[in-house]
Amino acid sequence: MLPRLRSVLACLAASICVASGQTFTRLGTCPDLGCVLPPDQQDFHPGQQFDIRFEIHAPINGSEAFNNGVPDEKFTATIYEDLFAQDANTPSVVNVASKIYRRIALYEPGTYTVTLSYYSGKKTTAQWTVRPLANKKKAKNVIFFIGDGMTIAIITAARLLAHKTVNGRYQSLMALDKFPVLGHQMTHSVDNFMTDSANSANALYTGHKSSLYAMGVYADSSPDDFDDSKVETIVELLTRILAVTTAALNGISNYSWTKIDGPDVYFGGGADFFLPGATSYLGKDYYEEFEKKGYSISLNKTALATASDRSKALGVFCKYDMPVWLDRNIFPENLGKRNNDPSRAKTFAKDLPGLKEMTLKAIDVLHNRGGKKGFFLMSEAASIDKQMHALDYDRALGDLLELDDTIQATIEKLKKMGILQDTLIVVFADHGHGFGSDDPRQKRNAIGVYEKAGLSQYVTPQPGVSYNTGPNFPLNWDPRYVLAAGVGGSTDYYFNPTDKPHGFVVNGTLPTDQYAGVHSLTDVPVYAMGPCQEVFRGTYDNIDLFYKLANCLGLAHGTNRTDGYRS
Amino acid sequence: MLPRLRSVLACLAASICVASGQTFTRLGTCPDLGCVLPPDQQDFHPGQQFDIRFEIHAPINGSEAFNNGVPDEKFTATIYEDLFAQDANTPSVVNVASKIYRRIALYEPGTYTVTLSYYSGKKTTAQWTVRPLANKKKAKNVIFFIGDGMTIAIITAARLLAHKTVNGRYQSLMALDKFPVLGHQMTHSVDNFMTDSANSANALYTGHKSSLYAMGVYADSSPDDFDDSKVETIVELLTRILAVTTAALNGISNYSWTKIDGPDVYFGGGADFFLPGATSYLGKDYYEEFEKKGYSISLNKTALATASDRSKALGVFCKYDMPVWLDRNIFPENLGKRNNDPSRAKTFAKDLPGLKEMTLKAIDVLHNRGGKKGFFLMSEAASIDKQMHALDYDRALGDLLELDDTIQATIEKLKKMGILQDTLIVVFADHGHGFGSDDPRQKRNAIGVYEKAGLSQYVTPQPGVSYNTGPNFPLNWDPRYVLAAGVGGSTDYYFNPTDKPHGFVVNGTLPTDQYAGVHSLTDVPVYAMGPCQEVFRGTYDNIDLFYKLANCLGLAHGTNRTDGYRS
Repeated sequence: MLPRLRSVLACLAASICVASGQTFTRLGTCPDLGCVLPPDQQDFHPGQQFDIRFEIHAPINGSEAFNNGVPDEKFTATIYEDLFAQDANTPSVVNVASKIYRRIALYEPGTYTVTLSYYSGKKTTAQWTVRPLANKKKAKNVIFFIGDGMTIAIITAARLLAHKTVNGRYQSLMALDKFPVLGHQMTHSVDNFMTDSANSANALYTGHKSSLYAMGVYADSSPDDFDDSKVETIVELLTRILAVTTAALNGISNYSWTKIDGPDVYFGGGADFFLPGATSYLGKDYYEEFEKKGYSISLNKTALATASDRSKALGVFCKYDMPVWLDRNIFPENLGKRNNDPSRAKTFAKDLPGLKEMTLKAIDVLHNRGGKKGFFLMSEAASIDKQMHALDYDRALGDLLELDDTIQATIEKLKKMGILQDTLIVVFADHGHGFGSDDPRQKRNAIGVYEKAGLSQYVTPQPGVSYNTGPNFPLNWDPRYVLAAGVGGSTDYYFNPTDKPHGFVVNGTLPTDQYAGVHSLTDVPVYAMGPCQEVFRGTYDNIDLFYKLANCLGLAHGTNRTDGYRS
Repeated sequence: MLPRLRSVLACLAASICVASGQTFTRLGTCPDLGCVLPPDQQDFHPGQQFDIRFEIHAPINGSEAFNNGVPDEKFTATIYEDLFAQDANTPSVVNVASKIYRRIALYEPGTYTVTLSYYSGKKTTAQWTVRPLANKKKAKNVIFFIGDGMTIAIITAARLLAHKTVNGRYQSLMALDKFPVLGHQMTHSVDNFMTDSANSANALYTGHKSSLYAMGVYADSSPDDFDDSKVETIVELLTRILAVTTAALNGISNYSWTKIDGPDVYFGGGADFFLPGATSYLGKDYYEEFEKKGYSISLNKTALATASDRSKALGVFCKYDMPVWLDRNIFPENLGKRNNDPSRAKTFAKDLPGLKEMTLKAIDVLHNRGGKKGFFLMSEAASIDKQMHALDYDRALGDLLELDDTIQATIEKLKKMGILQDTLIVVFADHGHGFGSDDPRQKRNAIGVYEKAGLSQYVTPQPGVSYNTGPNFPLNWDPRYVLAAGVGGSTDYYFNPTDKPHGFVVNGTLPTDQYAGVHSLTDVPVYAMGPCQEVFRGTYDNIDLFYKLANCLGLAHGTNRTDGYRS
């Protein structure tokens, strides 16, 4: 085939990269002395903007030491439409010659081969695929619900906590259980099987696998995190972006690269980033900044309820992360222990909305402002993950049940508004979490062996105990036996002396200097209903979620419209 | 509504039940002094045969002591079509008056209320639902693949072991990953959330939830296990039943209750049950018994390959369970350590087929014998579960990969035979398993934290190492770091002194007298392709698998055809 794009580059600058900037994980994207970012095996949305960075490495130590540590600055690079793949893996300390091209876009679907030539004869190649995508919009509105760290086992546990059974038959089900279409995503990142939240979010929002802790960029060799090669997010691709989240500022992009003006709705915590001072960007008062842009400002649940449905809406309800459902509903006395009021007042945030109140209000505003164009809403239960890290399973399960309750209320509201059939609803997790065996409340007996395990006490009414949390939440949070749904049922285990002379007992599973649990490797679920629901079934990669959504929204365009973000 | 069936019973016999016959688990089905089997909230296939048993309990001790331990023998029972539900749970030692009716069947879809009246005024009711089902056959052939104990996390781990990735993108996928339809099943049993294999199999084969260790029956109060109330299985409902399994005699019903003649194909281990002597039923030689019935007899892989495709086929390849894939392919030296030859010879079984050879041979025989009627084949990877119990994850993962390889080969074979589009293929697990943290091979480092975890060494070629196990299996079973896919990433954990004065470290999760792991609570996956595939999507109960299949096979019949099993 004829070349669609050819660029021959003379290197302009070389920069030194310190060893600490060269982690094993980053090198996953630079398998040999030539480095192409985006790396091998990446897919692109037609017209999606991205940066290209080429690096030539000159290892100065180790078995790989090369060319006296002097990188070849006369490298050339070509991009042909063609097929190729490669693989290897060797960490090293290197000097780097590099060149970056900003805001490239490929409009023609097909497979491209990038060839980097250096050290007179060495070659590094990367294969890129621009996916053929539809440009017809099939869903007017899209709502993404994210259960951060929500695995099948945790969903099973939450159902058990909150829904009654008779002879093994559930008398009620979770909203998730009623979704018509189910899928599984594989969550591995470029350089690690066990993904973190940043690069799993990156896969979902850009359609690109990235490195550990990288969000919207491919991490490069330079120490500066803000010069990395960027990839356009769905937030930037959409002409109208609307987000609600309980996860503070997580997932908000740096808009300097593109012309997008920020979301119409933003609800969550993180007041410390809005109040003027050390923790706010450039020390500014972002309540003022948002007000200037025409946002209504709500600092508590009462204000949120009465905020205009016509103007853009900012709701910041506390400093730091939003308190979890269990503290807001079961142990409100815990709220008073904080100093997290979103205003300048040195007190605690009392009047807090939950994910449900934020989501339903967002729908009112977005529906008004979106009009014929429709809207995109992202609603995240971020503290499922946060509490799993803290090995606090009750709080994680409480927030998962709050998410399910929010999904149920959302479906009812959309039905009443008559827009349910125009709205694609996708619920998914970004990665998994294991359950530990860390609960003092007789969990060992709760697992027992089958006939000893007994049934759930979470749904047994307790005299005088009523949380007014509706039928979808436990009646009792303090059972005699806790649930041990996610625990690997393993015995205390002493290895055979041939394995280790005196045997040894297995305790935790992490290095002893670690203070918190980590994610798990398991595929995570995707639930879908509405227009395009069928494409979300089966097993696929996390980046596919981006392309399935882009396809359903008809975001593909074959010419340069990268300056038309608000058109 | 008018009563469809009414029976007023005078009690004929009373039997004494010893305390040991009254486990907590069994009482799950007998919440009060009156006991109806099948219990409350059970569903039925129209025309499906079942026994009805009524029991009246008279507690002789404890807070529940009643009527001086004399059960009311003058109880009456009625069955109306109506709606009702109930719930409670109290273990006790009781005397029992009971009455059983054998081989009842309800042909009329609807909801029935069973009312048991006793102790002049006390009442126990149970709700039964006869599901409205189709009688049109939509799939000619059905193949059930069962991965015993196969969770999403274990599938994720198996994929990682056997399939190479480049920058987080898989270069090949499992057969399971290519299935168009995905579902999740909830696995709870009547009296326990953590189901065992017997009653999860019962749910799948009868559409009825049952008690711990109960298979094809509802456990009653009497000490005799063989007088329990039976429910007809899909094996008995189908006019032609064909099974292949690696799980010895697991799941083969007692046919005395119905006229079914046994499967056309039976392949597996368990020679000890076939050879005449102490371990065979009535001491008979079952090779002879099967030969008399016209079965071809194969005792090794070579004989299996050349066995007739026209006659019924018995293949018994070893005593006890079949050796697992890892021992047959990677560590054949382990085979020699056994005394498991299927013949009378005191040696070990050398020439062993795998699940793939057994399954493909079964298809040849079944396709020939089934003719226009088609066939039903059940192929189970039973040792995934067995090895998980032993906390031997390598062997569990090896057998999961063998199952996947078998599924892939089956799809290719059906395609070649031109019958793929007439064949419903359903792959499912019966229950989950947790992964423990029990591997001495640096698993702690393998989990590490994200950037330390590194990538898989299982797919890295090892000089001089080749198992000839094809692209769908690991290239290296002895990596520097093992995979820790299923482990809950929990730190060594000392509880706060307020929890326990000196704190304590958490080791395993089971009572210290337990010698093996147990199942986990998680929903388990269902994969479907072929006719009716759509009905297997979404989240449902394990019994629903039976009704979805029965519906697809058009097994419903509104009149008594219970003597026409071979018609």
